Amino acid sequence: MPDGSARRTGIALTERQRIAWLRLIRSDNVGPATFRDLINHCGSAENALSMLPELSARGGAARAIRIASVQEAERELDAAHRYGARFVGIGEPDYPPALRQIEGAPPLLAMKGDLSAATRPSVGVVGSRNASISGAKFAAMIARDCGRAGYTVTSGLARGVDTAAHRASLETGTIAVLAGGLDQPYPPENLPLLDEITEGAGLAVSEMPFGWEPRARDFPRRNRLIAGISLGVVVVEAAERSGSLITARMATDFGRLVFAVPGSPLDPRCHGTNGLLKQGAIVTTGSADVIEALAPLSQLDLFSGSVVEEPKKFSDILPPNDDDRAIIVSALGPTPVEVDDIIRHTELPASSVYLILLELDLAGRLHRHVGGLVSLAMED
Amino acid sequence: MPDGSARRTGIALTERQRIAWLRLIRSDNVGPATFRDLINHCGSAENALSMLPELSARGGAARAIRIASVQEAERELDAAHRYGARFVGIGEPDYPPALRQIEGAPPLLAMKGDLSAATRPSVGVVGSRNASISGAKFAAMIARDCGRAGYTVTSGLARGVDTAAHRASLETGTIAVLAGGLDQPYPPENLPLLDEITEGAGLAVSEMPFGWEPRARDFPRRNRLIAGISLGVVVVEAAERSGSLITARMATDFGRLVFAVPGSPLDPRCHGTNGLLKQGAIVTTGSADVIEALAPLSQLDLFSGSVVEEPKKFSDILPPNDDDRAIIVSALGPTPVEVDDIIRHTELPASSVYLILLELDLAGRLHRHVGGLVSLAMED
Repeated sequence: MPDGSARRTGIALTERQRIAWLRLIRSDNVGPATFRDLINHCGSAENALSMLPELSARGGAARAIRIASVQEAERELDAAHRYGARFVGIGEPDYPPALRQIEGAPPLLAMKGDLSAATRPSVGVVGSRNASISGAKFAAMIARDCGRAGYTVTSGLARGVDTAAHRASLETGTIAVLAGGLDQPYPPENLPLLDEITEGAGLAVSEMPFGWEPRARDFPRRNRLIAGISLGVVVVEAAERSGSLITARMATDFGRLVFAVPGSPLDPRCHGTNGLLKQGAIVTTGSADVIEALAPLSQLDLFSGSVVEEPKKFSDILPPNDDDRAIIVSALGPTPVEVDDIIRHTELPASSVYLILLELDLAGRLHRHVGGLVSLAMED
Repeated sequence: MPDGSARRTGIALTERQRIAWLRLIRSDNVGPATFRDLINHCGSAENALSMLPELSARGGAARAIRIASVQEAERELDAAHRYGARFVGIGEPDYPPALRQIEGAPPLLAMKGDLSAATRPSVGVVGSRNASISGAKFAAMIARDCGRAGYTVTSGLARGVDTAAHRASLETGTIAVLAGGLDQPYPPENLPLLDEITEGAGLAVSEMPFGWEPRARDFPRRNRLIAGISLGVVVVEAAERSGSLITARMATDFGRLVFAVPGSPLDPRCHGTNGLLKQGAIVTTGSADVIEALAPLSQLDLFSGSVVEEPKKFSDILPPNDDDRAIIVSALGPTPVEVDDIIRHTELPASSVYLILLELDLAGRLHRHVGGLVSLAMED
């Protein structure tokens, strides 16, 4: 049984820092990776906010970068408060420890419910929205047994497998990850379930702004969070090219375990899961398969990995050379390359390269890819 | 596609040799391994037959060993002839080449049908007698596609999966391996199917005597032949502790590929197949999985491994020392050991050790185990 009394460590953001963090992550062209680079370069979110216009302009932005205002951030914090939710920063004790480890972990998570669920070891249980009866039954069994074994169960609040997994772990603790804002759950029929989750031992989490209605392209990002929160992901039934396979691929990328439940090759709902088995997923025919494989992982110390502000004087933060910027832009193209390759190729100091890439990023001229690769955004 | 024009090589037994081989394998305490040792020691089956009483007596047999008479052997050859069948020796060109490779391959196989099917590369397709509709459908698909790809399909003539596999490969060639004598097929309802097989492009084979009614303990031995004839075995549906799992385990022992079709963990007919997947069987969701994995194997030269008679003078065949026999008997116990260990432990010449073990075997005092291990049969 995993250690339920998670070692709660970390920093605590001041309210002023929290507002600055929220403003920064809600500003244009700032994703989690850029957020981290900005804190590293500028020393704090507050410094970063004041430097954004200059950095973005130096990177060649066509127009002034949109920066979230203090009022906007306060409005969102108020909305969260009214909704009974909190924003938790990546360095804070209530942030899910496994999620901290992933590349591009969200700097702030909106959370509602029993926050102690966030820091226990978790297993993801995902699958088809149109699950078969036996698929739903199997998902419920895994969720119930993993819950009893001390794991929270993380899923996506979707119909079918997700619903069965959440329901079966209501008492032991379940985490619903939303693709839209915390106040915009989907699908509507699962609103009562979400209430049961957050009023009980469970938790709803989202990295999206309050009021954000989920669009199709937000779901892969939601799946990424499910994989990041979980030590392992159980895929119960999944068609080919389904969202659950994205969750499984991301879990693999993050070094988490992937479990797949075998099913008839003649049932399209099993094509995806059988495909995962061919790729080496753990054959899962019962809860013991999951619990035994996860046991060693749940002992690992996952409390490293954070974003820490450190005092820095503005005068220490020097702009790069304009010639260097031109060299880097001409060295980049539409093909993703490693930052180390850029440094080797251009023979420029690493600090200059990172800074110029940050500027280009804020100017909307850089694409970031898995594994830290970057490419130049091509003009239309 | 495998090379359909098998390289037919090997010796041809004379009718006199064939009768001696049949008498020897039908005599008491003579199984395939003992048969091979006897030919090696005595030079020919005929020599072995004349030495059996002495060897068995020296081994300490309680009563005279029963030796099949010339009349018995001729009666069986006549029965085979009337039935339209032939006996094929392990060194002869029509003997299934992959079967020749296994430890304890039968020295003689009774065969009826199109003998050219015996020497083509084969895939075993086995599974539940009470197959589901989709299981039977899947077995038929695999058998049909493998047949078209140039493989014969080997199975056990049982209900369910076996029946579906045979039916789907009637035109391309299928091998039915029987647990009893060739004239004692089981189950009775599959007699018309067996006729279709042997009158068409297929083959029925058995290592058991004509007239032998199959008992429960003959089926594992039948499964061993299925695994031995096949380059790989596809298990379509199998409950726990079912015969198909024996076939799969033997296929693994013989270094053949094992394919398992995934199925719902909630269906008991899939517990065995899912278990095989956990042990590393190839996840099989379509015929391509089988055909692609077998392709490199079907190119191997499987035409080695045989039993060859070579002239030997009786005067060259010396009995072992009685003291040596006592040493070996006292060194042996109920725990299976390697023959090499006996040689090392007793410091006797290897030839004496082998000969004394052969005598004990013929006297019914030795048990042979997988991997060439032996143990002493304990008195009741």
